[in-house]
Amino acid sequence: MANIVVQTIERAPLAIVDGLAHCGVATVHEAQGRTGLLAPHMRPIYPGARIAGNAVTISAAPGDNWMIHVAIEQLQAGDVLILAPTSPCTDGYFGDLLATSAQARGCRGLIIDAGVRDIRDLKEMDFPVWSKAVHAQGTVKNTLGSVNVPIVCAGALVHPGDVVIADDDGVCVVPRADAEAVLAIAQAREANEEAKRRRLAAGDLGLDIYDMRPRLAEMGLKYV
Amino acid sequence: MANIVVQTIERAPLAIVDGLAHCGVATVHEAQGRTGLLAPHMRPIYPGARIAGNAVTISAAPGDNWMIHVAIEQLQAGDVLILAPTSPCTDGYFGDLLATSAQARGCRGLIIDAGVRDIRDLKEMDFPVWSKAVHAQGTVKNTLGSVNVPIVCAGALVHPGDVVIADDDGVCVVPRADAEAVLAIAQAREANEEAKRRRLAAGDLGLDIYDMRPRLAEMGLKYV
Amino acid sequence: MANIVVQTIERAPLAIVDGLAHCGVATVHEAQGRTGLLAPHMRPIYPGARIAGNAVTISAAPGDNWMIHVAIEQLQAGDVLILAPTSPCTDGYFGDLLATSAQARGCRGLIIDAGVRDIRDLKEMDFPVWSKAVHAQGTVKNTLGSVNVPIVCAGALVHPGDVVIADDDGVCVVPRADAEAVLAIAQAREANEEAKRRRLAAGDLGLDIYDMRPRLAEMGLKYV
Amino acid sequence: MANIVVQTIERAPLAIVDGLAHCGVATVHEAQGRTGLLAPHMRPIYPGARIAGNAVTISAAPGDNWMIHVAIEQLQAGDVLILAPTSPCTDGYFGDLLATSAQARGCRGLIIDAGVRDIRDLKEMDFPVWSKAVHAQGTVKNTLGSVNVPIVCAGALVHPGDVVIADDDGVCVVPRADAEAVLAIAQAREANEEAKRRRLAAGDLGLDIYDMRPRLAEMGLKYV
Amino acid sequence: MANIVVQTIERAPLAIVDGLAHCGVATVHEAQGRTGLLAPHMRPIYPGARIAGNAVTISAAPGDNWMIHVAIEQLQAGDVLILAPTSPCTDGYFGDLLATSAQARGCRGLIIDAGVRDIRDLKEMDFPVWSKAVHAQGTVKNTLGSVNVPIVCAGALVHPGDVVIADDDGVCVVPRADAEAVLAIAQAREANEEAKRRRLAAGDLGLDIYDMRPRLAEMGLKYV
Amino acid sequence: MANIVVQTIERAPLAIVDGLAHCGVATVHEAQGRTGLLAPHMRPIYPGARIAGNAVTISAAPGDNWMIHVAIEQLQAGDVLILAPTSPCTDGYFGDLLATSAQARGCRGLIIDAGVRDIRDLKEMDFPVWSKAVHAQGTVKNTLGSVNVPIVCAGALVHPGDVVIADDDGVCVVPRADAEAVLAIAQAREANEEAKRRRLAAGDLGLDIYDMRPRLAEMGLKYV
Repeated sequence: MANIVVQTIERAPLAIVDGLAHCGVATVHEAQGRTGLLAPHMRPIYPGARIAGNAVTISAAPGDNWMIHVAIEQLQAGDVLILAPTSPCTDGYFGDLLATSAQARGCRGLIIDAGVRDIRDLKEMDFPVWSKAVHAQGTVKNTLGSVNVPIVCAGALVHPGDVVIADDDGVCVVPRADAEAVLAIAQAREANEEAKRRRLAAGDLGLDIYDMRPRLAEMGLKYV
Repeated sequence: MANIVVQTIERAPLAIVDGLAHCGVATVHEAQGRTGLLAPHMRPIYPGARIAGNAVTISAAPGDNWMIHVAIEQLQAGDVLILAPTSPCTDGYFGDLLATSAQARGCRGLIIDAGVRDIRDLKEMDFPVWSKAVHAQGTVKNTLGSVNVPIVCAGALVHPGDVVIADDDGVCVVPRADAEAVLAIAQAREANEEAKRRRLAAGDLGLDIYDMRPRLAEMGLKYV
Repeated sequence: MANIVVQTIERAPLAIVDGLAHCGVATVHEAQGRTGLLAPHMRPIYPGARIAGNAVTISAAPGDNWMIHVAIEQLQAGDVLILAPTSPCTDGYFGDLLATSAQARGCRGLIIDAGVRDIRDLKEMDFPVWSKAVHAQGTVKNTLGSVNVPIVCAGALVHPGDVVIADDDGVCVVPRADAEAVLAIAQAREANEEAKRRRLAAGDLGLDIYDMRPRLAEMGLKYV
Repeated sequence: MANIVVQTIERAPLAIVDGLAHCGVATVHEAQGRTGLLAPHMRPIYPGARIAGNAVTISAAPGDNWMIHVAIEQLQAGDVLILAPTSPCTDGYFGDLLATSAQARGCRGLIIDAGVRDIRDLKEMDFPVWSKAVHAQGTVKNTLGSVNVPIVCAGALVHPGDVVIADDDGVCVVPRADAEAVLAIAQAREANEEAKRRRLAAGDLGLDIYDMRPRLAEMGLKYV
Repeated sequence: MANIVVQTIERAPLAIVDGLAHCGVATVHEAQGRTGLLAPHMRPIYPGARIAGNAVTISAAPGDNWMIHVAIEQLQAGDVLILAPTSPCTDGYFGDLLATSAQARGCRGLIIDAGVRDIRDLKEMDFPVWSKAVHAQGTVKNTLGSVNVPIVCAGALVHPGDVVIADDDGVCVVPRADAEAVLAIAQAREANEEAKRRRLAAGDLGLDIYDMRPRLAEMGLKYV
Repeated sequence: MANIVVQTIERAPLAIVDGLAHCGVATVHEAQGRTGLLAPHMRPIYPGARIAGNAVTISAAPGDNWMIHVAIEQLQAGDVLILAPTSPCTDGYFGDLLATSAQARGCRGLIIDAGVRDIRDLKEMDFPVWSKAVHAQGTVKNTLGSVNVPIVCAGALVHPGDVVIADDDGVCVVPRADAEAVLAIAQAREANEEAKRRRLAAGDLGLDIYDMRPRLAEMGLKYV
C-alpha cells in the first residue's frame, strides 16, 4: 500500500463543489452533522479566500516535498491539493514555483498540515493555502510517499476525490458520495438562517425564537 | 451558586468606558499597576478594532453555547460579552446569528477563551471578537451554566460590570470601582508620553531622558 | 562575559544587506544551504514588510526591557535590533516609544523572541517587528543583560553585525563574513527560478523539468 | 495594592484540611460543584503524594523568586505555598534550599505555575511540588511582588487561607469559608461511591445502576 | 450515522492480539510499514504497562462521558476502550468507578485523546490508560455520541475490532484484517533484531553491519 | 560546511567531567553565570539518572537517523551523543539497538531535541536519554547531515567536546575551555550551600541569612 500513485479517482461534479464553496465551511459542517472539520490549527495564509475542490491527497515524509511534484501531474481543473506529513512537521514544503505549476493545471489551493513559504507571492498569485505553519525552511526530495490514498490530515479522514471546502473559518471535508445530499441540506439551512437573522436583527431573542425558556426552567436555571 | 443568571448588575458610566477605550489596552494596564491583562493567546479575529464595554460574563460548559442566548437578554447598550468555558475548548461557540442578536441589543463585541466562527461575516458586520481560536466546530445546547457571575477568563478575574478594554494588543479588565481612577491615571500617562515621544523622535536617548546611566554603572554594566 | 555592552562591531556593507532584503528569507536561506532560519513561531505583527539589517543583539532577563534602552544608543542606520530573553517570555518588551527612539537612529525593525505591544502605532509608524507574541504586559528595568554579544534567538545563533533578513516567511540570519557570497548565490538562484517559473506556468511539470521520473521509478514508486 | 505582605490571614482548621486531603482532588472538586481545579498543565514532580494545606499566596515577577523568601516567614504548620507569576514563566524559582526552609516552618508543599528544580533532592526530602515545568534556570531577587493577596494561579482564583488539595490528579482550591461544607459533601460522596464500586465490580452496568436506558432511548440513541 | 451503537463487531483472535502485545508498539508499527501510530501526546499514566486488545471505539462530545457507560456494555474479554472527543478536550472522562466496571467485563485498558483521573486508584487496580492529559475535571451525561463506529483518535484511523497495542512508547493500531500478517512480520523482525543486537553489543558498527559506507560516500559525506 | 564528519575533537578530562556530573545541572548552570541550559521541554525518559560526558554532536534531517550510525563510530568512553534536527521533529530516532551500539563504545547517554523509543529497554539497559518526545515513529536513512559540528540544541549552542551535564532538572552545556573553572566554582558553591542548608533547616530565615530586609524596605515592600 505504501509508495503508490493512484491515477484514476472519482470526483464530485464541479457544480456541487462550487455550491459547497458558496455555503462555506461552518454551514457545510453543520449540514453533515457537525463532522468533517480539520483541527483549528489549520489557518489561511491570508484572509478572505473561500474555495472548494476535489481532493488530490498526498502522504509525504517529514521535510520532503517530492510527492508534491508527483501529485501535480494528477491534478485536474477544480482540484485541491491536501497533504499530511507522516509525522509532525512545520517545514515549508510549498512555495511560489509549485503554486505556479499547480495553478497552471487548474488547482484551486492547498491544504497542508505542515508549513508553507513565499507567502507574499502566493497572495499576489491568488493561490490560497491553509496550513499549520508559515516557515521558509526548505525540504528535500529523498523519500517516497503516496498520492491519492486515504490520509488523516489535521485529524480528519480524507479520501481522494472528496470535496474539501476552506475559508476563514477553517477547512471541512465532505465525502464524495455525500456531497450532493450535504449541499441540499446546507442550502436549506442557509435559507432558514436568513429568516432568523432578520428576526434577531429586529431585536427578537433566541430564547423566544427557539422556545428555550421552558427547558431552561425545567433544567433548573435560576434568575436572581 | 451554579446555574444562575444575575439580572441586575452595576455598570461603569459609558463616558468612563469610552475614555478607557481611547487610551487602549497597553496604557490602561500600565495605569492600574500592570494588572488585569488576559493571556496573550487572546487575539482579535481582524486587526484594527478598539473597544471597551461593561462586562456581561458567561460561564459555559465545553462545546455548549446555550448560555450565550441567555446572556444576550441581559445586554444593555455599551456592554461586552465575555465567556470562559469551564474547561479548555476551541469550539466555535459564536457566529453571525448570535452577533446579529447581540449587536441589535447594543453589544460592542465578544471576548471568548474558546473558538468563534463566521469570521468573514463578523468582519463585515463590524462586530469584533477576541478569541483563543477560530474554528467552525458547532456547539450544542444541553448543559446549563451561569450569566453575570465572577469568572476567570484567560487568567484574569472578571466581575460582571467590570470594564473590558480590547484592541490589537489584547484584552484588559478594570474593576468597575477603579474605572474612574484608572482613567485619570491613564490620561495623565498619555499626556506624559507625548512629550517623551517628541524628545525620542528628535534623537534624545532614553538613557538620558530617564537618567539611567548612573544606576547602570552602579549595578556593574561594562562598556567594552 | 555577562552584563557587557560591546560598542564596536563590524557590519556588512548596506549594499549587500539591501541585496539580501530584496532576495527575501526563503531564497537567502536556500542560498546558504538551508541554514540560519529562526523558528516558525516568529511572526510579523503586520503583513507585507520585508527588511534586512545588521544585527545589534540584546540578551535580556525575562520581563525586563532595560537593555533595549542601552542597545538603542549602539544603533547605526541600517541596523536591526534582535533580542533573546534568557528564559521563555511573552511580555511586551517594546512599544511605540522605544520604536520612535530606534527609528530616530536609523533602525529598520525589531526581531524579538518574546512579546511586543502598541501594534497599531507600530504599523502606522511603519516599524516592523517579528515576535513570538503580541502582549500588552509591561516590563521592568531592574536586571542587567548584555548588548552585542552572541545570542541564540528562536533557535538560531546570531553574532552582532550578522545580517538579519525578515519578511512574511519569517526571519533568517547570515553570518557577516558570508554575506557577500550568500548574496551572489541567492541572486543566481533567483535568476534561475525565473526561467523555471515560466516553464511551470506554461504547464510543464517539475517531474520533467527536474528529470525526476527515472529516480522515482528506481526507488519503487508505483503508478496504479 | 501592589507590593504588600499580609501578615494575618484566617485559616481553615487542620482537621478539615486533613479530611479534604484524604478525599483527594477529584472527589473534592465534584463535591463543590465541579469547580476550583487548576489547569491540567500543573503536574506533580513525583507520583504518589497527596496533600492539603492552607494557602500562603505569592504574586511574583517572571524570573524573580525574592517573594518566596518573604512568604516563608509567613508560614505556619499545615500551610502550602502557592505562587503565580505575573506573566508566563518556566524558570526554576524553587529548589532544595528554599524547601528546607519552608519545611522547617511546617510547610507541606508548593504549587507553582512556573518551574522548579532540584527535583531529586525534593523527592528525597519528601517535599512535594506541583508545577508547570521542571527547569534548572535560576532566578534573581530584584523586583517586588506580594504575599497573601488574592491570585489567579493556573486559571483558578485563590485567596490566602483557602484550602489547597493536591495529588496525582492535579490541584484543587476550596474557599476557606466553604471548606467544612465541602468536606461533608465529599465524605458523603465517598461513602456512596463505595457501594457503587462493589456493584460495578460484580458486573452490574452503570446503564442500569444509574437508570440511563430510558433517557438514552428518548434522546434517540440507536442500537444496530 | 450519528448517535448509534453497533452491537456486533468482528474481532481479531486473542492469540494474535497477545502476540502483537508481546512484540510491542515500536516493532509492530515497523512491521506494518511505519503506519498506525497515534500522536506522541498520548502517554501512559504510569510506566511499564504493555497491552493489546480489540478496539471498542467511542465518539463522545467534549466534557461528556455518557457514551463510556454505553460502551462498557459492549465489552468482551480482551477488548480495549478507545475514545476520541468530537473536539479537543482535556477533561477527566474516566476514573476508578468506570475502570472497575470495564475491568469486570474483561477490558484491558483505555486509550483516550482527552483526560483521565483517579490515577492512583487506576495504578493500584492495574488498569492502564494512555491519555492526552491527567485532569480531575468532571464530565456530564447530556449529549449522545456513538459506539463502535470508525473514529480518528490522536491522528490515527481506528475501526471497531482493530487491534490496539500500547506500551511506554505510545499506541499503535493494526487493522483487524492485517493483524495476522503483521504479527508474522513483527516476529520475524524481532528474531532478526536479536542477532544484530549481539553484534552491536560486541562493538560491531551499524555502518558495517548494514553496509552503509559506500552509499554515504556516494552521496558526498566528507570525513575531515 | 554541510555533510561533514569531524573525526578529531578535543575533549575535557574525565575527572573534570565526572566532577561536573556530581555537582548536577542546577549547580553547574549557576556556576557559569546562569547560562548553558537547554529548554525545559527536554525531559529524562526515566527519573534518577545523572550523567556528564563530552559532546559528540549530530545535525540530522527531520525523520532521518542515518547520522547517528555515523556518529557512533566517533564515540569514545565518556562521551554523550547530542542531536539537533534541522527542523522540529518528534520521531523516534533512537532505540535499543542504537543504544546497545553506543553503550558498547562507552557512550553514557543521549540528548535529543526530538523523539526516542524502546523506553522500557533503555531503562533496563541503564542508558539514559533526555528528549523532547517519546514516540515509536520510525525514521529513514536517506539524507546526509553532519557529525561534530557546532549545533543549536533546544536553544543552547553546543560545540563538539563541550561537557554536557544531565539529570532530573534538565540538561546543561559547559564550553570545554571553561570546564575546569566552572567545576571549581560549582564545588565552592556546593560547600557554601551546605552551611546555608543547616541554618535553614534549623529555622533561620533567608530574609536574615541573606540580609534582605533593608533592601526590601527601601524598595517599598509594605507589611500590613
